[in-house]
Amino acid sequence: MIKYLLKIFLFFTCSCFFSQKTDSIKIRKIYDYNLTSGNCYKNLRSLCKDVGHRLSGSNSAQKAVEWANLIMNKTDLDTVYLQQITVPHWVRGATESVIWEDEKGKAHQLNCSALGGSVGTNGTIKGNVIEINNWNQLESFGEKNITGKIVFFNRPMNPTYISTGMAYGNCVDQRHNGASRAVEYGALAVLVRSMTLKFDKNPHTGSMSYLDSNKRIPAAAISTVDAHNLSQALKNNNVKSLSLQLSCKQLPDTVSYNVIGEIKGSEFPSEIILVGGHLDSWDIGEGAHDDGAGVVQSLQVLETFKRMNISPKRTLRCVMYMNEENGNRGGIHYANNVKKKGEKHLFALESDRGGFTPRGFSIDGTKLQLDYLKTFKKLFEPYQLHLFSKGYSGVDIGPLKNGELCLVGLVPDSQRYFDFHHSKEDVFENVHKRELELGAAAITSIVYLTDKYGLPSSRKLKK
Amino acid sequence: MIKYLLKIFLFFTCSCFFSQKTDSIKIRKIYDYNLTSGNCYKNLRSLCKDVGHRLSGSNSAQKAVEWANLIMNKTDLDTVYLQQITVPHWVRGATESVIWEDEKGKAHQLNCSALGGSVGTNGTIKGNVIEINNWNQLESFGEKNITGKIVFFNRPMNPTYISTGMAYGNCVDQRHNGASRAVEYGALAVLVRSMTLKFDKNPHTGSMSYLDSNKRIPAAAISTVDAHNLSQALKNNNVKSLSLQLSCKQLPDTVSYNVIGEIKGSEFPSEIILVGGHLDSWDIGEGAHDDGAGVVQSLQVLETFKRMNISPKRTLRCVMYMNEENGNRGGIHYANNVKKKGEKHLFALESDRGGFTPRGFSIDGTKLQLDYLKTFKKLFEPYQLHLFSKGYSGVDIGPLKNGELCLVGLVPDSQRYFDFHHSKEDVFENVHKRELELGAAAITSIVYLTDKYGLPSSRKLKK
Repeated sequence: MIKYLLKIFLFFTCSCFFSQKTDSIKIRKIYDYNLTSGNCYKNLRSLCKDVGHRLSGSNSAQKAVEWANLIMNKTDLDTVYLQQITVPHWVRGATESVIWEDEKGKAHQLNCSALGGSVGTNGTIKGNVIEINNWNQLESFGEKNITGKIVFFNRPMNPTYISTGMAYGNCVDQRHNGASRAVEYGALAVLVRSMTLKFDKNPHTGSMSYLDSNKRIPAAAISTVDAHNLSQALKNNNVKSLSLQLSCKQLPDTVSYNVIGEIKGSEFPSEIILVGGHLDSWDIGEGAHDDGAGVVQSLQVLETFKRMNISPKRTLRCVMYMNEENGNRGGIHYANNVKKKGEKHLFALESDRGGFTPRGFSIDGTKLQLDYLKTFKKLFEPYQLHLFSKGYSGVDIGPLKNGELCLVGLVPDSQRYFDFHHSKEDVFENVHKRELELGAAAITSIVYLTDKYGLPSSRKLKK
Repeated sequence: MIKYLLKIFLFFTCSCFFSQKTDSIKIRKIYDYNLTSGNCYKNLRSLCKDVGHRLSGSNSAQKAVEWANLIMNKTDLDTVYLQQITVPHWVRGATESVIWEDEKGKAHQLNCSALGGSVGTNGTIKGNVIEINNWNQLESFGEKNITGKIVFFNRPMNPTYISTGMAYGNCVDQRHNGASRAVEYGALAVLVRSMTLKFDKNPHTGSMSYLDSNKRIPAAAISTVDAHNLSQALKNNNVKSLSLQLSCKQLPDTVSYNVIGEIKGSEFPSEIILVGGHLDSWDIGEGAHDDGAGVVQSLQVLETFKRMNISPKRTLRCVMYMNEENGNRGGIHYANNVKKKGEKHLFALESDRGGFTPRGFSIDGTKLQLDYLKTFKKLFEPYQLHLFSKGYSGVDIGPLKNGELCLVGLVPDSQRYFDFHHSKEDVFENVHKRELELGAAAITSIVYLTDKYGLPSSRKLKK
């Protein structure tokens, strides 16, 4: 233990003494700038309204690339460039319909949304419905009960989790794997209860995948209200049949880009501090929280450094990733490229959990890095950021993980996120200006401190 | 210091050992109950939609009293009773109009709302406008510049405060005292920029008061957008005159009630733990956050004890105060009555800062009480409550302060509160179910712990 504390102490002395007072003054200025003069709210309006939703491969995704490139150039960064990748190109199509017929022959139309990656129905799929609430149930029903039916996965997100992200994580397997599991038992198609804790009529889309290219059945989300009603009708033996029509399809992969901008470090230009979010979104709503917020907050970090004339010691790189939602091709390509080029990343931070009041940081690094970042905690308390804990960072930066680099996720308040997530409600109007700005100020501040003091890497300290 | 620590230690041993594990299990159950089966969201809908806004003295305030009485009786409390008080009775009237005329003779109608307590205009008041941004300015303009004019107080809430309550506290003096200060310099009437950080067209009302009954001039709030535009027009010398019409008036005081319900303590029935909010609201919107949320959360504390079969050692008392908004007659009367009867209150908690994600507690007690409550902090961390700090509790319970009793305010996230506060936007739809429930669970949990372990009073420990 003493040895360990000595390591941290030595790191402090090596990298220059931690000046609590100067830092608290600088952080106060970063917050003041963001809360009075920052551009992230204005930029978010533009991304949502001028570009709109932007699924990988779509025209609007290309427009988003141009938008990000333009904004970065306007911010007067040292370098702005595009990193070419190939992305999946899935399109929703015009037809989306789920209708069940009751025993009296009355038709009930459900609010539905094809899951991203789903095949279409190629006409109408009609069948009986079987409700499944856990994987064991699927298994025990087995082929004899499931073959020729439409499987309805209706396990709700658990409302007792305090972090709604945790509730999502424990539920999204049915959306992602439902079709590939159900097809093994001969299902015709899959309906999934929307991933939200809200009881309303909005369907929430999201990614799904197939294991076997020969066994692909369509899958769609239905709203929680519809899921509830359908489940009730099934309990009452009042569902005669259900018909599903989806015209979505997968087109050939296409070209897209990560958009990257940098401020070159004055002392250690080869050490990179990355901050980012993803430019793509689902194709309903405007991708305002997911992840317009992360995009404009990340841009704001570099803008704040420029406008406040803070010259970073290390190179600050803002990465607007493409294709987080349905493939993570941007994140994977970026990480491969880093490896190929032998670039040295010190710290990577992602904002991709909505533009809500920031609560802290989720840190995926060594114990030493975690303990070191916790020494900053006091500086963030006046801004009501309290979470500095070990945890997941983000999908885009995930592939960079190498045991040395410190990955960090911004953690905003999670209560409202899944009200909007992947639905038509994820629009600019549902993002709160101050909450968004507080997030931008929080990540700018931690980037400022990390740039100023560096960060212990396990290798360095093993020497 | 050692003596002090000994005191805390002794208190622990006296009141029974703090059992972290048992308590964390109980708190988990309290949260589970609130997040799955609690009634506070349903009750809030009923209060907002069946009763609506409920300014002291109004018919709907009387309806709110009956509503609270009914709900408490339904909750099967040991005692439910009304505490009669007299309340001011101010009415808005049908006419509210602020129009300024530009140099070309064009009329510009502003979104306005008379301040509560304001006299009416008795016809139309017309005059030139003078903008004031701080009290020094008012003084230096003096009588010669102000006499016969309408004073426009336009100091905005400071966006750099992290707590919006702090920004409000540093700005609301112009709303409350603007008329009484301006009349000293001969002003005809007063307009005040709405107390909100949002830039929109909603006027926000609120209380004001007069110092001298012979010098009463009308006062109204205008929206922040209108305040901005009027200010710009003044800068451009483009405001020819402004006309104000308000038909509000003060009626004679009338009768109303605090509504009180109790669960009798099994061991120390004469020791009272109070939890409360205020039943009255302003007369626009539905008083959903202010303070419908606090009302239904406080009710929920007692309901949770009943439904979970927790028998409190001390008497739990829920007080639905009347007249917080424009007089605090309920709070003052309640405290006087406590004194008169020699009732012993141990702990009083108020929820009156909106139904948003709870962040912690603001504690107005002795250092010993503060330090003691901080020992509970660890139990609240899994629920992301981190603030346990010295601070203001609430208007209603404030008059109970006696140097011994520990007063506590629930502190929710403050970013959105003043978007709604005292405006037509303070409606049920703007309260988030889970955030409201998390607040109810938080206060139930701290009441549970305080009931179980008691609380050090300075007198007791001085023995």
